[in-house]
Amino acid sequence: MSAPGAADENDVPAVTRALARFVAEHPSAGWGDHVEREALRTFRNWLACAIGASHHPTLEAALAGVMELAPSRQASVLGRAERVDIASAALLNGIASHTFDFDDTHLATIIHPAGPVASAALAIAEHSGTSGRALLDALVIGVDVECRIGNAIYPDHYDRGWHITGSVGMLGAAAACSRLLGLDTRQTTMALGIAASQPTGVREQFGSMTKPLHPGAAARAGLMSALLARHGFTASASALEAPRGLLRTFSTKHDWREIVEGLGERFEIVKNTYKPFACGVVIHPAIDGCAQLRDEANIDADAVERVELRVHPLVLELTGKRAPRTGLEGKFSVYHACAAALLFGTAGVREFSDACVNDPRVVALRERVTAHADEGIDEAACEVTLTLRDGRTLHKRIEHAVGSLERPMSDRDLDRKFHGLVDPVLGEAAADELLARCAQLPQTSEVRRLVDAARAV
Amino acid sequence: MSAPGAADENDVPAVTRALARFVAEHPSAGWGDHVEREALRTFRNWLACAIGASHHPTLEAALAGVMELAPSRQASVLGRAERVDIASAALLNGIASHTFDFDDTHLATIIHPAGPVASAALAIAEHSGTSGRALLDALVIGVDVECRIGNAIYPDHYDRGWHITGSVGMLGAAAACSRLLGLDTRQTTMALGIAASQPTGVREQFGSMTKPLHPGAAARAGLMSALLARHGFTASASALEAPRGLLRTFSTKHDWREIVEGLGERFEIVKNTYKPFACGVVIHPAIDGCAQLRDEANIDADAVERVELRVHPLVLELTGKRAPRTGLEGKFSVYHACAAALLFGTAGVREFSDACVNDPRVVALRERVTAHADEGIDEAACEVTLTLRDGRTLHKRIEHAVGSLERPMSDRDLDRKFHGLVDPVLGEAAADELLARCAQLPQTSEVRRLVDAARAV
Repeated sequence: MSAPGAADENDVPAVTRALARFVAEHPSAGWGDHVEREALRTFRNWLACAIGASHHPTLEAALAGVMELAPSRQASVLGRAERVDIASAALLNGIASHTFDFDDTHLATIIHPAGPVASAALAIAEHSGTSGRALLDALVIGVDVECRIGNAIYPDHYDRGWHITGSVGMLGAAAACSRLLGLDTRQTTMALGIAASQPTGVREQFGSMTKPLHPGAAARAGLMSALLARHGFTASASALEAPRGLLRTFSTKHDWREIVEGLGERFEIVKNTYKPFACGVVIHPAIDGCAQLRDEANIDADAVERVELRVHPLVLELTGKRAPRTGLEGKFSVYHACAAALLFGTAGVREFSDACVNDPRVVALRERVTAHADEGIDEAACEVTLTLRDGRTLHKRIEHAVGSLERPMSDRDLDRKFHGLVDPVLGEAAADELLARCAQLPQTSEVRRLVDAARAV
Repeated sequence: MSAPGAADENDVPAVTRALARFVAEHPSAGWGDHVEREALRTFRNWLACAIGASHHPTLEAALAGVMELAPSRQASVLGRAERVDIASAALLNGIASHTFDFDDTHLATIIHPAGPVASAALAIAEHSGTSGRALLDALVIGVDVECRIGNAIYPDHYDRGWHITGSVGMLGAAAACSRLLGLDTRQTTMALGIAASQPTGVREQFGSMTKPLHPGAAARAGLMSALLARHGFTASASALEAPRGLLRTFSTKHDWREIVEGLGERFEIVKNTYKPFACGVVIHPAIDGCAQLRDEANIDADAVERVELRVHPLVLELTGKRAPRTGLEGKFSVYHACAAALLFGTAGVREFSDACVNDPRVVALRERVTAHADEGIDEAACEVTLTLRDGRTLHKRIEHAVGSLERPMSDRDLDRKFHGLVDPVLGEAAADELLARCAQLPQTSEVRRLVDAARAV
């Protein structure tokens, strides 16, 4: 083996073994507070997304399919009363967490890191009665493995058509489960190797239920890989980097240094971001501007004569739908999104429901929104001008929307998002209780206590 | 949509829907006797392979992993007493059937067709109490779907590093299960679409237990895709052929005509072949020559002074190991394989065991085998010359080994192979009983009766 970091195809570092050693042997203590903080935020945000979608038609269909296996009752389906085997729990919670397209994003790779990793790790942690500390360690390490591999192959791999969250996520899930099961370096090498044969997801599925299947299937594949490795199942020890290994089979770019440099010293989870609004990021600046004006000026929407937006042309190209009729269509209408944000102060799941899109107040305000495409404005930016019936005008310019790396979601933002997702499923009091248990997670001796509060009774 | 058969990238036929319509609506009656015959042979050969490896360390490890899910007892693990949920049965029987690398081959694509398809279909058929007729229909249709898709992308797809049995097999499994579950065209389109996000297997795994995991994982993925589709889970209806669909994501060759031309009229299963020997095909001609000489001349191996082989150079390049020490190494020794064939008349699982490779009689004979590489002899051919201690010489030239398309395995050959695999697990009487039930399969009202005879008690 060559020096770690060599990117030459003839001098490829043994990345499968290097990652396995990191997963099995990293002491976990010693990483900074910012790693710890982002791990907790990643977990809390993922939990809310999974609970929020736990009764969506996507989850109902997936659960009905899984129930045909008459699974044992090992682990919880978040937000519901059903319990299923750990592999199915990983699958279902992974599907739910990505159903609203409202989860988290590692912007450098556009991987949604928590779906595959947290869904697999929580199933193992609940079933085997592990501590919150162990779960958080597994989450940091699993996210690091998947995002480092993503860094090595993005964008070529994604450009080919792979949905990178599912096609790389199973490696993060395998890492997290190997760590939780206490596999040694050799066994973890096998677990990563077994997972390396099971990528999920092509981008053609965007717009169908199979999109959220991708993180779910990745979670299940990673979990099963770790279980098989624990019992002596074997794989190639260079399943990632060999000439016929995964990374060279499904990507032409392989920057091996991204995988091994600083491994165990710096952690990709600190770059995770959380979506403030349940739609594509392209209209987040406009939503943010409207929501800020509403809060700052305490405006009654009836007092608004008209709303004028100045946006990058891409905004109208992607979200220029003037008269959406369904919640899903609403995600492609900057007019609807801004009207909803002015009326309700946010644009979450409820604001992209069929009911909200057809709410007469929303429709009336939406018709008073105009948008002007302007090449001179950055994609990340937006200008909003409100003209009130009393003649006043209010103006807001957004350089970076909330939820970006430049303006990360505050803990208060995340709490509000949490309640928006969880309250309709479990009720506000239960959501508060669950938030409290999330805060105590590093000290919790059994993760089960948290899961008990995340289940419908 | 364009006319079926267009291969131009700008004029791509809707192959996902075309395959779904075929799977859901083909009457099944009306295909020729040769289709029916090969379906039965494909099933019988697959069954023997799965039972034969049912106690191999690969299966023990996989079963131990699956048992961590505490699965319900819906379907049988062939050759064993354990029962597991249908998804796990598909996985485990698919792994077992490919463990000895002794199953079947669609030579045009080197897909091993039965592993993904039969493993998934039998689990559904056993659990839902379907007829033998329905199982055979599903097998023909599932194999047709996977091999047609293979034809469209081979060899480019395989050359990239994908193990095509696992990376295409899930589509055959989804087709077979959709058929058995009675899904309509729309639901079957969804099942194929869901499966299209779940390819398994890179070639770097060859030599490890993850190689046989590929058909097993493909079987499980196809089965789950059909179950999800039955309950309304959605996917792209052009998940195979769209620009970001599976076939264009993981292959640069797409001959769409291979998928749609003659669909429902000619069937790829008639091109299936069955391995007579449990090793790579490159030394099959030499084994065949030695076995034939032994049978024809009724030779006592002690009477053999020396054995001379004339073979294509590739034979020595791939299988030139002079002194193998394990069964696995024996597969890479033409010397061992020929000695075993002269002594035992075949080269099955037993002949590639550690015990046989170290048997003093085999070792003594192996040392009297010489092989001469000759560019002038075809890869498919071989010449064998025996010199006996009494001075006589015997000669045999093989143009095509048994098991090739030119010299297919006879039903008697398949029976012998069946007993070689099944007798050590279930006993000779039970193997005979099982063969009888295989023969009755088209008339069997419940497949369960056959499975009962394939299970250890």
